[in-house]
Amino acid sequence: MKTVVKNIGLLATARGKEARKGREQGEIQQIAGTYIVIIDGRIATVGGEHTAPDPMICEDATIIDAGGALVTPGLVDAHTHLLFAGWRQKELALKLQGVSYLEILKQGGGILHTVNATRRATPADLVAAGQESLGRMLRHGTTTCEVKSGYGLTVEDELKSLAAVRELNGLQPVDLVATFMGAHAIPVEYQNRQQEYVRLVCDEMIPAVAEQQLAVFCDVFCEDHVFNLAESGEILACGRRYGLLPKIHADEITPLGGAALAGEVRAVSAEHLIYADDKGLAKMAASGTVAVLLPGTSFYLGEDFARARAMVEMGIPVAIATDFNPGSCPNESLQLPMNLACLKYRLTPAEVLTAVTLNGAAALCCAHDRGTVEEGKAGDLVIWQAPDLEFLFYHWGVNLVKTVIKGGEPVL
Amino acid sequence: MKTVVKNIGLLATARGKEARKGREQGEIQQIAGTYIVIIDGRIATVGGEHTAPDPMICEDATIIDAGGALVTPGLVDAHTHLLFAGWRQKELALKLQGVSYLEILKQGGGILHTVNATRRATPADLVAAGQESLGRMLRHGTTTCEVKSGYGLTVEDELKSLAAVRELNGLQPVDLVATFMGAHAIPVEYQNRQQEYVRLVCDEMIPAVAEQQLAVFCDVFCEDHVFNLAESGEILACGRRYGLLPKIHADEITPLGGAALAGEVRAVSAEHLIYADDKGLAKMAASGTVAVLLPGTSFYLGEDFARARAMVEMGIPVAIATDFNPGSCPNESLQLPMNLACLKYRLTPAEVLTAVTLNGAAALCCAHDRGTVEEGKAGDLVIWQAPDLEFLFYHWGVNLVKTVIKGGEPVL
Ligand SMILES: [Zn+2]
Ligand SMILES: [Zn+2]
Repeated sequence: MKTVVKNIGLLATARGKEARKGREQGEIQQIAGTYIVIIDGRIATVGGEHTAPDPMICEDATIIDAGGALVTPGLVDAHTHLLFAGWRQKELALKLQGVSYLEILKQGGGILHTVNATRRATPADLVAAGQESLGRMLRHGTTTCEVKSGYGLTVEDELKSLAAVRELNGLQPVDLVATFMGAHAIPVEYQNRQQEYVRLVCDEMIPAVAEQQLAVFCDVFCEDHVFNLAESGEILACGRRYGLLPKIHADEITPLGGAALAGEVRAVSAEHLIYADDKGLAKMAASGTVAVLLPGTSFYLGEDFARARAMVEMGIPVAIATDFNPGSCPNESLQLPMNLACLKYRLTPAEVLTAVTLNGAAALCCAHDRGTVEEGKAGDLVIWQAPDLEFLFYHWGVNLVKTVIKGGEPVL
Repeated sequence: MKTVVKNIGLLATARGKEARKGREQGEIQQIAGTYIVIIDGRIATVGGEHTAPDPMICEDATIIDAGGALVTPGLVDAHTHLLFAGWRQKELALKLQGVSYLEILKQGGGILHTVNATRRATPADLVAAGQESLGRMLRHGTTTCEVKSGYGLTVEDELKSLAAVRELNGLQPVDLVATFMGAHAIPVEYQNRQQEYVRLVCDEMIPAVAEQQLAVFCDVFCEDHVFNLAESGEILACGRRYGLLPKIHADEITPLGGAALAGEVRAVSAEHLIYADDKGLAKMAASGTVAVLLPGTSFYLGEDFARARAMVEMGIPVAIATDFNPGSCPNESLQLPMNLACLKYRLTPAEVLTAVTLNGAAALCCAHDRGTVEEGKAGDLVIWQAPDLEFLFYHWGVNLVKTVIKGGEPVL
């Protein structure tokens, strides 16, 4: 199967097979007036400046005319909680009245509502809900995304959720990478028996997830009133023993030291990092841990924004993701987080492009395979309603996707 | 021509033929499980709760199945500057480096760039650019929008712009309402000859616009370094003599007193109002002037947000619009401003729905004709990817439009 994308006004892409950090985060390649050939789902040829494909190449190929528009790699969303039942729009009115999240929790709302609904949901319910969200992701340019479990919080419901992710992976075009996150919250039935829940995660959930090969990563919510540093370290070490690579929700609400822990356990990525201190960040830089930043959540909650510029300057590879979830960030699109990364983090368009493609892929351990438009990589592209890269970051609030190409096939 | 929209999960709409203010701004009607019949572009029947259309009614009708989703009136965007050439994405890098707007202006950027490009543009160029933006508006749910001139700033170029608006009105589904805004800026050739430019606006532009019936409204940018209170009053009075109803960009950057002026001249609407004081707002309340608030601009510029809650409580009808323009708000969609109105203004979903439908229409003097789903009004509807009204405001960042119906015809 051969696809030729021709008449590309501008191709903008990071380069390489590893996370880009420091100054390199912003050093992307821009080729004006070019074309791309994709064979059997892989990029076979990238044209030079102002070149058109040889008519020979076009024989027997599906031809896609980009109409002079901007083309980038498909977006990689490295942090989502998309597998759930139980949207929480009914809590909006309470929030607008100033009711605190703790009070909403007490009334059975917040994450409890989503956990209860997810436990009650059948696998088919979860797959249907996931498919709707993934459709929105795809329409907004995402071609690969991470999905965390963590709304089941029983052995059975965590496995049910991850099995639904596996099923969804075969049902629609977006490639999914699963993360086990049984340590997302303490379920109510374990209140005041926190250590017992940690044992359940380590002794039952992780072995079962590993045995069924349902996840690549193990993540933990390291935070006051959730899992402390010792518990987080224990869970991640246990995951690692079973072949699940560590990720960590670190220093989102309080400066607990999650960034330092991420460095110490050589986590693949650390998430949020709003209150990470310089010492913690230095450890992350040393271990090559990717910072997965979530500006949409900061914005939606009215929180502070992570110190993204400082992280880039310290040589930490920065990825930007949606954090899509039904509570703190009900948004499937990477486009607004991309705008926020410019407006609020003061990253440049080139740095953000790397953050939502190659560095997102690096946070999912697949930078060798996708995240750039280079020969041999996955044929995942977005054609934008934009003449250049700056337009994509300057023009906000609307969906600027024109076409999405997944593995060489136009899927939108 | 008959259209039946059936299987509506929830119809949410304001009611009435005038702006809704105070407590009434949030008193909308919600009908679960209903249908709508549109005949010859007008709403003929709105079903009751849990009713389906009589099979007789459906004969010879185009049937649209809403699939159990939320339906609202088509959105009315009461404030845009959509007619221009000269996007300004190239200034993003300067902004991110902290270069001030004044410095960008000195380099020939900012509004000067757009004015120069608009002057150079042919009518066909402007129509093509406008059509692209209007397509994005429609895809995001807008069925009626206001368009201001003000990037020509010569008699010829202002007339050219307004003629392009008239042409666009016939070329695509979104209904356009034109506002003459020759007093948008002082063109460079009139620097230090401000009074002469005011004379040009009053003595040449306004009479020509009125004679060719190219606009309904006359707007002025009342602000330090643009048009002061006396000049603004003079321009609006002149417009009124020629039949152009007054609107005013008031108190956006400094508390100059534009809100009070709006009340004194009985303006149809006053725009921005970020720094409007209580005295000015009281005058607006007394004159029934609609406050057209633009939260997208506040957000994009990192400015303060207008005191929307206070305005509602003072009995001022509040509309919310995009302010779509190539500088301070390059966004055609009302959806993100709707989210911002909840998150930042703390308005309720019902109040915001009124603000982007009926009160938007009131700001355009067409509340008698559209802005609600009631018998006799225009058959303009949006079917949303949402089960209820709260979802639309809680779920942000993505385009939630499923279908747009304009004058009874599905246009999307
Ligand atoms: Zn998360
Ligand atoms: Zn304006």
